[in-house]
Amino acid sequence: MITRRELFTGAAALAGAAAIPQVARAQNPPPPGDPFTQSRTPDGKIVPPSWTRPPHPEPGEPGKHYTPSVTLNGFTLPWKLVDGVKVFHLTAEEVPNHEFAPGLKAHCWGYNGQVHGPTIEVVEGDRVRVYVTNKLPEATAVHWHGIIGPNGMDGVGGLTQRSIAPNETFKYEFTLWQHGTFMYHAHHDEMTQMALGLMGMIVIHPREPRGPRPDRDFVFLLSEWKIVAGTMRPDPNEMTEFNVLTLNARCYPGTAPLIIKTGDRVRIRFGNLSAMDHHPMHFHGHYWWVTATDGGEIPESARVPEVTTIVPVGSTRTMEFVANNPGDWAMHCHMSHHVMNQMGHGLPNLIGVNTRGLDQQARQSLPGYMTMGDTGMAEMGQMGMRVPRNSLPMIGSKGPHDYITMGGMYTNIKVRDHLESYDKDPGWYEAPPGTRADVASIDEMQRDLGFIPGATPKPEGEHMHHHG
Amino acid sequence: MITRRELFTGAAALAGAAAIPQVARAQNPPPPGDPFTQSRTPDGKIVPPSWTRPPHPEPGEPGKHYTPSVTLNGFTLPWKLVDGVKVFHLTAEEVPNHEFAPGLKAHCWGYNGQVHGPTIEVVEGDRVRVYVTNKLPEATAVHWHGIIGPNGMDGVGGLTQRSIAPNETFKYEFTLWQHGTFMYHAHHDEMTQMALGLMGMIVIHPREPRGPRPDRDFVFLLSEWKIVAGTMRPDPNEMTEFNVLTLNARCYPGTAPLIIKTGDRVRIRFGNLSAMDHHPMHFHGHYWWVTATDGGEIPESARVPEVTTIVPVGSTRTMEFVANNPGDWAMHCHMSHHVMNQMGHGLPNLIGVNTRGLDQQARQSLPGYMTMGDTGMAEMGQMGMRVPRNSLPMIGSKGPHDYITMGGMYTNIKVRDHLESYDKDPGWYEAPPGTRADVASIDEMQRDLGFIPGATPKPEGEHMHHHG
Amino acid sequence: MITRRELFTGAAALAGAAAIPQVARAQNPPPPGDPFTQSRTPDGKIVPPSWTRPPHPEPGEPGKHYTPSVTLNGFTLPWKLVDGVKVFHLTAEEVPNHEFAPGLKAHCWGYNGQVHGPTIEVVEGDRVRVYVTNKLPEATAVHWHGIIGPNGMDGVGGLTQRSIAPNETFKYEFTLWQHGTFMYHAHHDEMTQMALGLMGMIVIHPREPRGPRPDRDFVFLLSEWKIVAGTMRPDPNEMTEFNVLTLNARCYPGTAPLIIKTGDRVRIRFGNLSAMDHHPMHFHGHYWWVTATDGGEIPESARVPEVTTIVPVGSTRTMEFVANNPGDWAMHCHMSHHVMNQMGHGLPNLIGVNTRGLDQQARQSLPGYMTMGDTGMAEMGQMGMRVPRNSLPMIGSKGPHDYITMGGMYTNIKVRDHLESYDKDPGWYEAPPGTRADVASIDEMQRDLGFIPGATPKPEGEHMHHHG
Repeated sequence: MITRRELFTGAAALAGAAAIPQVARAQNPPPPGDPFTQSRTPDGKIVPPSWTRPPHPEPGEPGKHYTPSVTLNGFTLPWKLVDGVKVFHLTAEEVPNHEFAPGLKAHCWGYNGQVHGPTIEVVEGDRVRVYVTNKLPEATAVHWHGIIGPNGMDGVGGLTQRSIAPNETFKYEFTLWQHGTFMYHAHHDEMTQMALGLMGMIVIHPREPRGPRPDRDFVFLLSEWKIVAGTMRPDPNEMTEFNVLTLNARCYPGTAPLIIKTGDRVRIRFGNLSAMDHHPMHFHGHYWWVTATDGGEIPESARVPEVTTIVPVGSTRTMEFVANNPGDWAMHCHMSHHVMNQMGHGLPNLIGVNTRGLDQQARQSLPGYMTMGDTGMAEMGQMGMRVPRNSLPMIGSKGPHDYITMGGMYTNIKVRDHLESYDKDPGWYEAPPGTRADVASIDEMQRDLGFIPGATPKPEGEHMHHHG
Repeated sequence: MITRRELFTGAAALAGAAAIPQVARAQNPPPPGDPFTQSRTPDGKIVPPSWTRPPHPEPGEPGKHYTPSVTLNGFTLPWKLVDGVKVFHLTAEEVPNHEFAPGLKAHCWGYNGQVHGPTIEVVEGDRVRVYVTNKLPEATAVHWHGIIGPNGMDGVGGLTQRSIAPNETFKYEFTLWQHGTFMYHAHHDEMTQMALGLMGMIVIHPREPRGPRPDRDFVFLLSEWKIVAGTMRPDPNEMTEFNVLTLNARCYPGTAPLIIKTGDRVRIRFGNLSAMDHHPMHFHGHYWWVTATDGGEIPESARVPEVTTIVPVGSTRTMEFVANNPGDWAMHCHMSHHVMNQMGHGLPNLIGVNTRGLDQQARQSLPGYMTMGDTGMAEMGQMGMRVPRNSLPMIGSKGPHDYITMGGMYTNIKVRDHLESYDKDPGWYEAPPGTRADVASIDEMQRDLGFIPGATPKPEGEHMHHHG
Repeated sequence: MITRRELFTGAAALAGAAAIPQVARAQNPPPPGDPFTQSRTPDGKIVPPSWTRPPHPEPGEPGKHYTPSVTLNGFTLPWKLVDGVKVFHLTAEEVPNHEFAPGLKAHCWGYNGQVHGPTIEVVEGDRVRVYVTNKLPEATAVHWHGIIGPNGMDGVGGLTQRSIAPNETFKYEFTLWQHGTFMYHAHHDEMTQMALGLMGMIVIHPREPRGPRPDRDFVFLLSEWKIVAGTMRPDPNEMTEFNVLTLNARCYPGTAPLIIKTGDRVRIRFGNLSAMDHHPMHFHGHYWWVTATDGGEIPESARVPEVTTIVPVGSTRTMEFVANNPGDWAMHCHMSHHVMNQMGHGLPNLIGVNTRGLDQQARQSLPGYMTMGDTGMAEMGQMGMRVPRNSLPMIGSKGPHDYITMGGMYTNIKVRDHLESYDKDPGWYEAPPGTRADVASIDEMQRDLGFIPGATPKPEGEHMHHHG
């Protein structure tokens, strides 16, 4: 179905570009050094804010000026070029039955029928005009997080503008001479509106490439929700015990994998608009360099290699690496309750307890209940335990070898030497012979350990203690 | 009223400066590199700690050696020069009726009648003597966080000294060859004493300026409290659900704004002595560079631009930027429950629920109660809802355009081209014509969108889905 | 008692080293710069992952290639050299009666009878083979956090391998061309298995020294537990209110001190596998430089000096400094509820309340109970209050001068000019005369303050207010 909205594409980008004189290349952020020495022009004048510069005469085009970003489980907001200005339209509205993963839906708030809102993707030097229509039952305002714009366009309800009343449409317009990863979100009744999902990502590609262009450029918005099992409404009052943790508003196994070809230059952009948690985003098999924040590009001299990067609430981090290690690699928040789903939190502590007899009692209030936790939680998803209507078992998804006991803010990175297409899941990785952990043979253990654990009696000194 | 304490000023600073030989310029921290190669003098001796160096012969003077720091909603501790030593006096004591914002007071613990304690401000090379009088009902000790001093002056009760008994006065004395942002706080029965407010900031200005001197230098101490609505005592047992979040022990709308002239070089120093939360401090309209921690100056090569900086518990961050973007800009913790005030947390989740009939019931226990949350929380402050005696509505303050639905750890930065005085609030910002978000006209929407949202029927495809 | 396991030592390291051709020195991580420009060899080929390189012909030897790391309250895992490969054996099993500090034990899960597992310590270029025997009641898998290895050896249960069933032994094998601080932990039913203790540290020393070798190299694994007072099982369901906070699975006063000679080059490695908290690790009397993460070495240009370093969940930080300041220095998490032990959280808020009469009532349910909190918590440990069986009083240990009112994630750094041995606690520090905070004399106060606090009437203006 071709729709009016789909005409808003980059294809028309050059149509209205006026003959504006060429401007000097943006310098954001300035080179490292004393921030105070960078504030004056050579003739002593204060450097004006970047938004006061005229836009670049050529609006940025996908393919030509940048490798488009991929918002897995989401999409990029289409735009239309009008007299050299990129025009966008956001509609804040209730999104009924947003699906977090198969089995869990809730009534959320989002933009353009999507939770979270679509990614706004532009190029340094572009001028943008964003219409915001409010179809919510209360007033709202949209703040452009990290954007250096005129004060009146900052979108802080009450402070920089009148909030947008229900059924009104407001117009925001500014020129962007930054590049990097930014965000937009409601800045009126934030606790409620953000807890319900009113947020999205902004990507501004550099006008001139900074080194080789990435082959893959992924965008993730991290958020957290409290949805009481069996209910359909996120609870904005929750301060601490969030039970639905999401990447682009999806939780595992509802999250799409990152599909990458061996050798690809990969950029991953994380924004975190969770209510309260700074998520430590971790990935396996490689290390990445953090190359930018929502304040701009990190100078090369200041970059740090990491395998886990804390993404503070209200900030973005851009990571870059070359995917040179083929396989299926986990990527997830490292907080252990954030790689779980709804069910299970609040269960009694039964580790090591004989639980026979308890189940019968519990099933009276929770149909299909079986005690978990006497030997751990792993069997919970695996056993296909019945859970309350509209809720997710704690963890789990069928993997290539066994049950994957993860949930929440988790997905897989699939790096392959050969790919048909970035759009087609290549299935599970086949490890080359001899590179997969497996059962040790009797001969190996006899040679290396001198005994067979479990089979022969425990040798003296099996339990080592503190020495040296 | 002129008091004896007010004689403790920098005006007398030179009086007692003895003729101590000029010492080499401090080098703290050393240039970036391998920490281990910096530990020996050229003749192979271990570099001694900086406090062992004799003090600079000239005690630092405000105006001459530094732009004084501004502790909004607080003050700088006066000092008196005695034989070249700066003498300070702190009295730990109960502070009855500390006001967090109009409408909320509590009985706290502080220094010199102030919550938190006043800022101690000195210059690299100064020798300081601090008397601490304990007027609390239990023992205490004062730790100088980040200060490199002799072990016996470190202020850890029991470990480095006997704790200061009620009604005793202790004497601390050391020479400071560091510069940066540090803190002082109780280091005895910390959970209780810090939860009640026993903390303050320390600023040590560099002896020789590091580039241009800042025009504005602000100091903020971040902390968090649990004060059950209607009670007068902070609860030190709270671990997670803090409901009073403060900048210099005030919460919005009780926080003073930062008043800045366009082009000013601005330094903002944050210290965080909250019990449990690493606050992500965010500001609008600019980006800043983080130039120091409580470990010292960050080498220029290692500095990172940010718009949100996580300030970990028990640490300081110094930010610098040039305020080149006029307007009223928000500055706040980005955790959404930390820009709220007391009331509202713990309300039932009523988003989307028809609430008629509930109010009558709730008013029996909470006079003046009206259900909020069925369409969000914004109307809470706005409607002037009655709240329990001595408590703050969740959010809100009247702004220039509308209600500002923020509270807690929030204030405004007011950047103006023209200012009468830094001490006079310039009122609200008037955005130049055409730079304020406002209602879109019919013509504009027809030209840019091709339809009028809300007025005309929703066009086909209004809800875009994932593509590409 | 000499045991078979103790034969697994570095002494045999050279025995099986085959004549493998010398390989070029590892370059991990690459020098700072654009990550994308570092992905190709000069002839345009993708740089393969480091694990594909053949091992160094000479397995690393303690003393020769590195200063061995010290895992206080723990130990380093012995190994045995078989055909040039270092062979290790981990047994995942229940560890009954693990002692957190005198007075508190619990039944945990660990490796080789130890909570947490022993430290694996190797040298860049080593090839390692690790056997993992599962003696737990449920399946498990071991992930090597931060290690760049073949996908099939990554240890993610279900995804990269079949999980290890009870009584099975699996074999992991890979070559390590990294150096730094890494971790291992269960990656199956993580919430349960990590909450019970299934984790340990990995240290990989550089093959060629990076500057002077450290004199002291300490390894700490940070974790957090909920153990309801009086029970013997950690509760894996807890998300927020952890009450046992540990360094190497011990809490103060059960933690061993760091013993250091003045002038020593010191490296401290922290890994954090806590469920939910990013711990801000703070130390006194010095500042350190953060020189590495679990992503590798931080380039010298990007290093930052700190006195408090946030160690995010699922990450490591390596700190280096020269201990030039003799004394007893505190080192601890700065979150105030993380330097407490079990008891006390959950007590009513009694600050400032007259509590006579309450105690009698409370003692009916809690034998020996005395009200604390009316003047603070400090007396709790000090008074020797009786606590429930198998629990720790909130805070406290006898110090040299007074009671030290700290607990949990706390220990002392003891820096001394003269030491008999690193293995012998040198006792408490004796501060040189005049360098210890103490009671101020009447004469001093009269000279410096002009009055005697407490003894003479409070002078006018004792309470200073905001000025300037």
